[in-house]
Amino acid sequence: MADADGPFVVKRHRSKTHIAPQWKSQSKTSAPTNNFVTPLLNDLYQITMAYSYWQQGRQDLHAVFDLYFRKNPFGGEITMFAGLDEVIRHVSNFHFTREHIDYLKEILPHCPAEFFDWLLSLNCSKVKIYAIPEGTLVFPRLPLIRVEGPIGVTQMLETTLLTLVNYPSLVATNALRHRIVAGQNSTLFEFGLRRAQGPDGGISASKYSYMGGFDGTSNVLAGHLFGIPVKGTHAHSYVTSFTDVSDLRVRELKDVNGKVFDLWEMVQEVYKQADLVTQTNQGELAAFTAYAVSFPNTFLALVDSYDTLKSGVINFLTVAVALHRLGYKANGIRLDSGDLSYLSKETRKLFVKWGEKFQIDYFAKLNIVASNDINERTLSSLQQQGHEIDTFGIGTNLVTCEAQPALGCVYKLVEIEGKPRIKLSQDMAKVTLPSRKSIYRIWGNAQHPILDLITTQNDPDHPEPGKRIQKKRAYITPTRVEPLLKLYWNEGQVAEDFHSLDDIRSYALTQVKIMREDHLRTMNPTPYKISVTSALFKLLYDLWSEEVPIEDISQ
Amino acid sequence: MADADGPFVVKRHRSKTHIAPQWKSQSKTSAPTNNFVTPLLNDLYQITMAYSYWQQGRQDLHAVFDLYFRKNPFGGEITMFAGLDEVIRHVSNFHFTREHIDYLKEILPHCPAEFFDWLLSLNCSKVKIYAIPEGTLVFPRLPLIRVEGPIGVTQMLETTLLTLVNYPSLVATNALRHRIVAGQNSTLFEFGLRRAQGPDGGISASKYSYMGGFDGTSNVLAGHLFGIPVKGTHAHSYVTSFTDVSDLRVRELKDVNGKVFDLWEMVQEVYKQADLVTQTNQGELAAFTAYAVSFPNTFLALVDSYDTLKSGVINFLTVAVALHRLGYKANGIRLDSGDLSYLSKETRKLFVKWGEKFQIDYFAKLNIVASNDINERTLSSLQQQGHEIDTFGIGTNLVTCEAQPALGCVYKLVEIEGKPRIKLSQDMAKVTLPSRKSIYRIWGNAQHPILDLITTQNDPDHPEPGKRIQKKRAYITPTRVEPLLKLYWNEGQVAEDFHSLDDIRSYALTQVKIMREDHLRTMNPTPYKISVTSALFKLLYDLWSEEVPIEDISQ
Repeated sequence: MADADGPFVVKRHRSKTHIAPQWKSQSKTSAPTNNFVTPLLNDLYQITMAYSYWQQGRQDLHAVFDLYFRKNPFGGEITMFAGLDEVIRHVSNFHFTREHIDYLKEILPHCPAEFFDWLLSLNCSKVKIYAIPEGTLVFPRLPLIRVEGPIGVTQMLETTLLTLVNYPSLVATNALRHRIVAGQNSTLFEFGLRRAQGPDGGISASKYSYMGGFDGTSNVLAGHLFGIPVKGTHAHSYVTSFTDVSDLRVRELKDVNGKVFDLWEMVQEVYKQADLVTQTNQGELAAFTAYAVSFPNTFLALVDSYDTLKSGVINFLTVAVALHRLGYKANGIRLDSGDLSYLSKETRKLFVKWGEKFQIDYFAKLNIVASNDINERTLSSLQQQGHEIDTFGIGTNLVTCEAQPALGCVYKLVEIEGKPRIKLSQDMAKVTLPSRKSIYRIWGNAQHPILDLITTQNDPDHPEPGKRIQKKRAYITPTRVEPLLKLYWNEGQVAEDFHSLDDIRSYALTQVKIMREDHLRTMNPTPYKISVTSALFKLLYDLWSEEVPIEDISQ
Repeated sequence: MADADGPFVVKRHRSKTHIAPQWKSQSKTSAPTNNFVTPLLNDLYQITMAYSYWQQGRQDLHAVFDLYFRKNPFGGEITMFAGLDEVIRHVSNFHFTREHIDYLKEILPHCPAEFFDWLLSLNCSKVKIYAIPEGTLVFPRLPLIRVEGPIGVTQMLETTLLTLVNYPSLVATNALRHRIVAGQNSTLFEFGLRRAQGPDGGISASKYSYMGGFDGTSNVLAGHLFGIPVKGTHAHSYVTSFTDVSDLRVRELKDVNGKVFDLWEMVQEVYKQADLVTQTNQGELAAFTAYAVSFPNTFLALVDSYDTLKSGVINFLTVAVALHRLGYKANGIRLDSGDLSYLSKETRKLFVKWGEKFQIDYFAKLNIVASNDINERTLSSLQQQGHEIDTFGIGTNLVTCEAQPALGCVYKLVEIEGKPRIKLSQDMAKVTLPSRKSIYRIWGNAQHPILDLITTQNDPDHPEPGKRIQKKRAYITPTRVEPLLKLYWNEGQVAEDFHSLDDIRSYALTQVKIMREDHLRTMNPTPYKISVTSALFKLLYDLWSEEVPIEDISQ
């Protein structure tokens, strides 16, 4: 798998992580789990089914479940698989506490004590979990996760696993789409905590936006938990809390050599030299000066509290020149309202003009950050209009996934006691692919994968490099065959190394490079091909036919 | 306020709750806080602004912030305010830990040790929080929460308070709208955990859907944390895990008198007596029998695994008759696919027919649950088509608030050191209402409030019952004047009793009864009136004019 030319070239942590017998994970993963993620974070019917399985003595029947989705989100043709690390973490910690059991006794008073003793003894020591690596681009109907083991416990993983995969994969995909539209040269920050769906929704958004290609977040806790770069400047309230220079109590700033200067005096000097036709807001100028005293190395000013071009940008530049004279380099400005294309272009002109006037060459390249209700469409429209924005702060639309706020992952039984099962449905799209399956990503001569092939176990059409695959009207001869499912949890042990969030992110971004561009584009993309072998198709057909007699008799 | 005819008639907990000096709340509220809700759940700019305030010696300036929204969600004219309990909980626990500080030192390495010592000492002992009671129907521009106190700490509450109010208010409003469309006679369950935005998104959804008028949830943890009724039955996988009667290992069931019967034999007997023209799926019949052995008192069967009307409903009824003969009453069936209007009506006919055939009168009224991708529109369409559904299980659309996944609450500085402030904007809708304000809900002669009036402090137009209020073209003479903002947190003490979730829910539902119906309807509702007094308007105008000179000079 660690083929040097392949997509798996990421820095790997080599140490195997083991789970202690108490089912407490001691591993360092990218997923500090929320205290709510326990087997009680579940739909009640998982517990009632478990009771019935237990009562019937069926709790140890060997079951296989597939977790997959039926449609790519946002009208696209790609999805980024995310959340696996937290899934493995949940599985490794899976146990009911006494407190959980006391509550379950309350709501299921007729169940016998032996059932609750059994619940209390449950863990995932007989469960195996196969999955596609986190950060991989995936497609409808591929089993992202295959769970194998006693039905009593594997059924009970359904709801929690779906909760841990659905939103992470959705928001990572959303982030990736923003990255694709913005291009590689823009910096993208996630600013959505305040609009997220619950505190944990905010944290998941920060984590998985980063995985999907963002550069950082404003969310401090996410920075702390996952090591994501954290960024921030100030709010309008900071600016409007200053009325004039009398609110500026500390003006002293040491230059880079340690000599103390009065920054306000220097700002005044620049202000005079600038020879302005318009007076700027003096409260704003005082606020910027105060902020520059606090952050001389990273000074970034929100410039639209009063008038962006006539006051905000001018005040910023005035302070930036003063900082320059003390040996510091300002960072730039943030726009939070108005016509971002126009304002960014005008701001750039002012940066260039001031740079020339004061002979400071880096002024032309100062950072322009925009952060007003940006989504995929506005990004795309800005690209068309032209703009001078270097950095986008994206909030609500990114974190709530406004364009489609849920990914419909499902968790379906595909085999029991070695016998393949399907769920029938009048809607063919909802019929499950039966049995324990494998998935292979097939590479042709080009630098792109061309097809994912789903097979049964011991499939006669098992793909191999150089062995032709028959398609409807053509043959394909794979140059490389990449099995996508790997064993991550092996009956009580973490079987695959955990990766750091940065490693998963790097891997995810290499994924984007290997996919054909027409699959990736956000407008009218081409679907990537998913095929099943003849053996799998026949199995589906046979099971389907077996169940149809109901219809026949009724005629 | 506890006027017996007014909207505040809810069961109140009389004991005052105090916060211990360690800032650990010992009160029992409806809000067990997620371990992520700390001051670190914040945008970085709150910390950088705090540093600058502290450096400037401005951290103790007395600031007033308003938390409000600008537009009702979902195209409606009402919003239910929710999340206050968790806000007060956060405020009462507000402190940075050593671990937090260590992280902040890492990301702000140039800030001096004294700043971090100050951060470590911060708490909300000098903060006051006024708010509208949780569960109240609220409208754009009303300050839902007013936060007063030192700017160093009150500014730092912004992001977390927004996170704790935005989604709860959105989902409670969404639930309320579903309740309004479904009417009072339907039972509504929230089934959305697996599609929620993060584990905590799922828990918030369950809690606030209940507050907004739902009857329960499938989410066991939410049941445990908040005492919400929890419901569930079984999944398709349970049914498809049974192939035939050989999978039914335990068939014995005691009747209500304790005598043991073979339920499968009794089911077979009913099956013969029913004289069916169509053979049903025997795996499904075995599964239902097993489930009935486990849950004889609450037997509810998912009937669409094979064929709803020809197999599922018939198998359910067969088992239900057998249960009846042992003295048990089945609950009903769940439909999870297909044409819910048609299937529910046909199912009801079968219930009636079997009830007559086997002379069981309650069969006609057995519970029909529907749970397939239901949202406000499908509910509304089902009401128009006619249906026989008693209970709706609503998931994705409810919890993700698909129709509008974010409520745009904002937190704005309105006063500093006693001086009113506004945030200017070219967009008039974004201009803030300055100063520390009061809100009064004004009642006329009818049983409905007619207007909310926002005033300044010591406003000459302070409303009183019987004192005429001048409007543009008419006078209003209030019969009752209800101040909406109450003090909830008073400098270190919880000032208003916490209510149980059930109390807030009851209060919320009385709110719906007192509002005029045309404000409540989901299609083309009438806006409820919000007015400001002349004094407040003049204050806004004066501040606006003060800031405009920038424009004048530039001409």
